[in-house]
Amino acid sequence: MTTPFSDLTTPALLLQRDRLVRNAHDALARAHHLGVMLRPHFKTAKSVEVAQLMLGQNMDRMAVSTLPEITMLFAAGIRNIRYTSPFDPTKLNGLQDMLRAGLELEILVDDRSAIEAISNQADRLRVSVGLIVEVDVDGYRAGLPAQGDVLSSIAKSITDAPGISFVGLYSFAGQTYRLADRKDRQALIERHRATLVSFASALEKQGLPCATLGIGSSPVLADAVHLDGLTEVCAGVYCFQDLTQAGIGAAQIDDLAVSVLATVTQRKSDDGRIFIDAGGLALSQDRSTRGQSVDQGYGLVCDALTGRPVGDGDIIVARTSQEHGVLMRRDGRSAPAELFPIGRRVRILPNHVCMMAAAYPAYTVIDGDKSAERWERATGWTL
Amino acid sequence: MTTPFSDLTTPALLLQRDRLVRNAHDALARAHHLGVMLRPHFKTAKSVEVAQLMLGQNMDRMAVSTLPEITMLFAAGIRNIRYTSPFDPTKLNGLQDMLRAGLELEILVDDRSAIEAISNQADRLRVSVGLIVEVDVDGYRAGLPAQGDVLSSIAKSITDAPGISFVGLYSFAGQTYRLADRKDRQALIERHRATLVSFASALEKQGLPCATLGIGSSPVLADAVHLDGLTEVCAGVYCFQDLTQAGIGAAQIDDLAVSVLATVTQRKSDDGRIFIDAGGLALSQDRSTRGQSVDQGYGLVCDALTGRPVGDGDIIVARTSQEHGVLMRRDGRSAPAELFPIGRRVRILPNHVCMMAAAYPAYTVIDGDKSAERWERATGWTL
Repeated sequence: MTTPFSDLTTPALLLQRDRLVRNAHDALARAHHLGVMLRPHFKTAKSVEVAQLMLGQNMDRMAVSTLPEITMLFAAGIRNIRYTSPFDPTKLNGLQDMLRAGLELEILVDDRSAIEAISNQADRLRVSVGLIVEVDVDGYRAGLPAQGDVLSSIAKSITDAPGISFVGLYSFAGQTYRLADRKDRQALIERHRATLVSFASALEKQGLPCATLGIGSSPVLADAVHLDGLTEVCAGVYCFQDLTQAGIGAAQIDDLAVSVLATVTQRKSDDGRIFIDAGGLALSQDRSTRGQSVDQGYGLVCDALTGRPVGDGDIIVARTSQEHGVLMRRDGRSAPAELFPIGRRVRILPNHVCMMAAAYPAYTVIDGDKSAERWERATGWTL
Repeated sequence: MTTPFSDLTTPALLLQRDRLVRNAHDALARAHHLGVMLRPHFKTAKSVEVAQLMLGQNMDRMAVSTLPEITMLFAAGIRNIRYTSPFDPTKLNGLQDMLRAGLELEILVDDRSAIEAISNQADRLRVSVGLIVEVDVDGYRAGLPAQGDVLSSIAKSITDAPGISFVGLYSFAGQTYRLADRKDRQALIERHRATLVSFASALEKQGLPCATLGIGSSPVLADAVHLDGLTEVCAGVYCFQDLTQAGIGAAQIDDLAVSVLATVTQRKSDDGRIFIDAGGLALSQDRSTRGQSVDQGYGLVCDALTGRPVGDGDIIVARTSQEHGVLMRRDGRSAPAELFPIGRRVRILPNHVCMMAAAYPAYTVIDGDKSAERWERATGWTL
């Protein structure tokens, strides 16, 4: 049964199937071209149907950010799952049954005390997990210092401890999000690649081979010139893309597959403010485009049917409160009243799609002007 | 069955029962003292168990911000429910059965075209709803201009239209959130009160009596000197309180009843950053204390058991990404490493509790150092 747009309750999380299919297909082709495996990150999608499109023929490996994502993927038959968020060892308690039933869990680590705690807990539960050591190449967030002696000492300590095994190295090229010039991103990616390959070679000489040598971020997948010597690229946001990715040129506006459908509900005659029924909860309060050359406020306003920006492409959600959004031009002038009659439906494109999507239990999947399917999302943190 | 803190999976949304009970009780006493009915707003709590504490003996009236909140309250026996968010008339479609089964729905309105659209849809569905006209006294957000001729013209148009009836006036004193001096808040509240009473008197003379004359915001409840002539005060955040309310002096830190339980997972030896497993999704990206005299970052770090601020009370979540939070001192210096061993549990107090709680499907209710109950929340926007 299909539902026309006009019958959907707003706000609703829309997923445009044709754009998702194209993004997922292009990413698999890019990884193939680069000669590495693609490990899709599930932190963005959190939907089995999306995972199947992201994996294509290779239904074997994913990365996740929460425990409910593991449950959803393991139930769908995916065995090799990498946990990339901060990992408290008590999380292993809820994973015991899956680990005994064939779950191959890999955990990203960068702290000696944390590694000992994971080893102790895994040993106590009589389960086994693989550890990937995160290397901090660009100072973006987490990771151990990119120093050979530090890494070989850690790799050896993992190999010697019970309940855990050393699987390889990973670096997250998070600074690619902040570089608006593709050449700068390519230079940074090459620095990550060369660093990882050099450390892996040194570790191998010490009898500590890296089964996996991975790099991450969607811009890496889009922009890398080559990834010779690496085995994997890990990326997630590429399946939907967002305004932050478009702002650095790693995506086009026409690639954006997820948006929030909202309705114009009020217009203020005195100052021209136009209200929609989607605010800080429905859109998230993410402002990742604030530091970019085009500030998209809390999201870019598009036509509900075509998905293309309204008017001159300069109408944004300028302000939010919990359930109210206010539309204005990007320069602070009023949005043209004639474009926004009461009851008009609009789509709001996200700054950061992972944050926007998190407020919804499911996607409303759309094909043209109809919605036909609802795809559940793995929400929250507890099993 | 009770669960000790150490066995909870993190991040988890904690609700400290004794503080909630005290906040709810104090609010009922305040409203009684002020001689008005309390209409608790459900946008913050979204839990039947919390609503019962907020309502006390008066299980009859609530305000809501979403459709799922209506379903939850109506199932619990509450009939008179006011919808205060932007209202698209197609939302009436999903409410038909409840309206025919006794739901008394009141909708906040401030736009002539929107009122016509609600009337048309209600008439088409053969249901009836009450309309409350929102008056913009302080320029905070929505509402019609505070002009007698505008208000009487709107009230008359509501009275004359099918499917809808005129119930009264409401003003949201949102600017109270921005005033750090209680005397300033009291002066603003008095301006709201006097404006509403004067308009209601004029409307009554024109044969348009206000059955309800209401004012909103938790600081109104806490600070009003008197509310003579009004019938209701509407407030929601008071049941849990948050750092934004504490920042203006409308609450104490010891009143805050909701927090996120998180675990220290990593420490960076080079620059002293300490990571927890709660980031922008688990804490929200709300930064409402940024403009206040004490900037609490993404939340204030407290001891897991006592709920009191750690160390000198100056440790905050200084940075977040999707699932990572970074602890630092408020002045940008490193947090003391000895306070944060790997595995330590901490509670993070919220800037804006409505935003933080929204990421969770349920509260973990705590009594002392044990959790015994899980209270479900009404999430999302669709029925």
